[in-house]
Amino acid sequence: MKMGKQTYIFKIQPKIVSAFTVVGPKEGESNLQSFFDIVLEEDLYDEKTFEIAESKMQKVATENALQRLGLKADDVDMYIAGDLLNQIFASSFAARELNIPYLGLYGACSTFGEGLIIASIMMNSEMINNCCVTTSSHFSAAERQYRFPLELGNQRTPTAQWTVTGAGCTVLAKDGDAPKITMATIGKVVDYGIIDASNMGAAMAPAAAETIYAHFTESGRNPSDYDMILTGDLGRYGKDLLIYLMEKKGMPLGDKYNDCGAMMYPADLKTFQGGSGAGCSNIVFNGFVYNQLIQKKVKKVLIVPTGALLSKDSPLQGESIPAIAHAISVEI
Amino acid sequence: MKMGKQTYIFKIQPKIVSAFTVVGPKEGESNLQSFFDIVLEEDLYDEKTFEIAESKMQKVATENALQRLGLKADDVDMYIAGDLLNQIFASSFAARELNIPYLGLYGACSTFGEGLIIASIMMNSEMINNCCVTTSSHFSAAERQYRFPLELGNQRTPTAQWTVTGAGCTVLAKDGDAPKITMATIGKVVDYGIIDASNMGAAMAPAAAETIYAHFTESGRNPSDYDMILTGDLGRYGKDLLIYLMEKKGMPLGDKYNDCGAMMYPADLKTFQGGSGAGCSNIVFNGFVYNQLIQKKVKKVLIVPTGALLSKDSPLQGESIPAIAHAISVEI
Repeated sequence: MKMGKQTYIFKIQPKIVSAFTVVGPKEGESNLQSFFDIVLEEDLYDEKTFEIAESKMQKVATENALQRLGLKADDVDMYIAGDLLNQIFASSFAARELNIPYLGLYGACSTFGEGLIIASIMMNSEMINNCCVTTSSHFSAAERQYRFPLELGNQRTPTAQWTVTGAGCTVLAKDGDAPKITMATIGKVVDYGIIDASNMGAAMAPAAAETIYAHFTESGRNPSDYDMILTGDLGRYGKDLLIYLMEKKGMPLGDKYNDCGAMMYPADLKTFQGGSGAGCSNIVFNGFVYNQLIQKKVKKVLIVPTGALLSKDSPLQGESIPAIAHAISVEI
Repeated sequence: MKMGKQTYIFKIQPKIVSAFTVVGPKEGESNLQSFFDIVLEEDLYDEKTFEIAESKMQKVATENALQRLGLKADDVDMYIAGDLLNQIFASSFAARELNIPYLGLYGACSTFGEGLIIASIMMNSEMINNCCVTTSSHFSAAERQYRFPLELGNQRTPTAQWTVTGAGCTVLAKDGDAPKITMATIGKVVDYGIIDASNMGAAMAPAAAETIYAHFTESGRNPSDYDMILTGDLGRYGKDLLIYLMEKKGMPLGDKYNDCGAMMYPADLKTFQGGSGAGCSNIVFNGFVYNQLIQKKVKKVLIVPTGALLSKDSPLQGESIPAIAHAISVEI
């Protein structure tokens, strides 16, 4: 059932029957280190390039998520995947290895949420029984693509975030005794005119605010209905901005709210505002949140992956940064 | 209903209630010139950059497709879009202007097919009533991103194709008296080891062959059931390869088969193998094919957008070219 313009309440509630994460060495030292399945010793993952390493992380996360269910790639209806690289290099090359009908997405750091939503609506057609939603990012691959050669050892600005090296796979199935997706709100593109590509939190916070506001007004819920509300990767500064924006809208998020990027790294890892990337909300969800749901420490979670939809060329053309956020309710 | 591993037969058959195309000057001189709605006089479209021009083409195509129905952006459930640019620049920036809940896709030149399929399966959930599927490509933007600066006047190889400058929007709705999508086959990623990024037809033909083969074996149809079978943008050489591959599989495509890329340009426009790009199969479908369906000159069409899923960096890393194709049946 559709409520309002953006929110979908699912009759068939997709079950999250498996989740698996593969993360880089820095994420292995992060606040959430104990929740990840595989921590790499080095981020090249025995490959020749960072991009192929990222692709391998997607493949390994997906195969292992399926293996936990005793399934093989051939048992899956669809591989829905995305990443931050030009032409989603990591996803398409992982799909080449996996041999599952493939749908590639690009929603920057919101891609994980976009994938969960597309999969959930499609599952309500009763035409698919299961699918894998996999996204990833890789610090070294993203850094050299979007910013500077790693060898330059360039200084970072205080508002910068650190691209998470991580891939995670969520397996959704029609049936199963597992946390389930109950609702979702699809975001619109929002642009408040931020032009600093080193301040993504500021660009994305308004998009998060609008999607969260739409979610609550359209679903009839309010923030206190959730045990945990997590935005994707606004970072510490962006998180503060969102708290401010929601208070101004008369809908304070309360103390159940946190941000995946802000949660990721301790201060001594020098990641400034925290984590970002299409892997960020993914590994926090598939690692930490999924564990908390399975252990019944939380029962209702709203996960809101956020994405800055700039191109690496658009700031050079004087364009401000469009952003988007999608909200997904997961419950036990 | 799902048939086999890849094919979906739709209970709710999405109606193609509107279509609109905006194309560049060269496409205005092409074989299909009379079927396009807006032909630009110059490919900058009064903008400062080719990328923003491409974005404007998406926006104008979408607004006009809706206007034909008397609809505004606010009346639409979803904007599903993609293009060839890094971070799908054109699509996200068009979504910024359109203010419709947005889902971004990347499937290279197959994106139009991917969008139609995602939209069709989602529409079978009975949760969405309508949506826009819009894709685009732009010669000047693609050329400088993937290949050489335009100012270099670089020579092209004989197997090269010409990126179509064009955007098209298909509006799908649950209800309406219009051509309808009856089935679709989602492609897997196929890689036969082609390493020449100037020979995309050779890379994509095997993917087209496998998807078409899956479509016919899983749906129970055969090529003679269609009045028209069109691959996306294999080009002239790739088209010949596909004909050969299908004959080897014991499933000759017959004389109803053609390729959108091969059909596009007359020989004197020096496009070598023909058109390509995420706009190619889109404008051929939304321009020419849609017209033929409306005029009842054809009744059953299989459109098979094809995509080469290379990154602009992957050939430099020694990787061969993965490819994909999706097949969609449109009938009156």
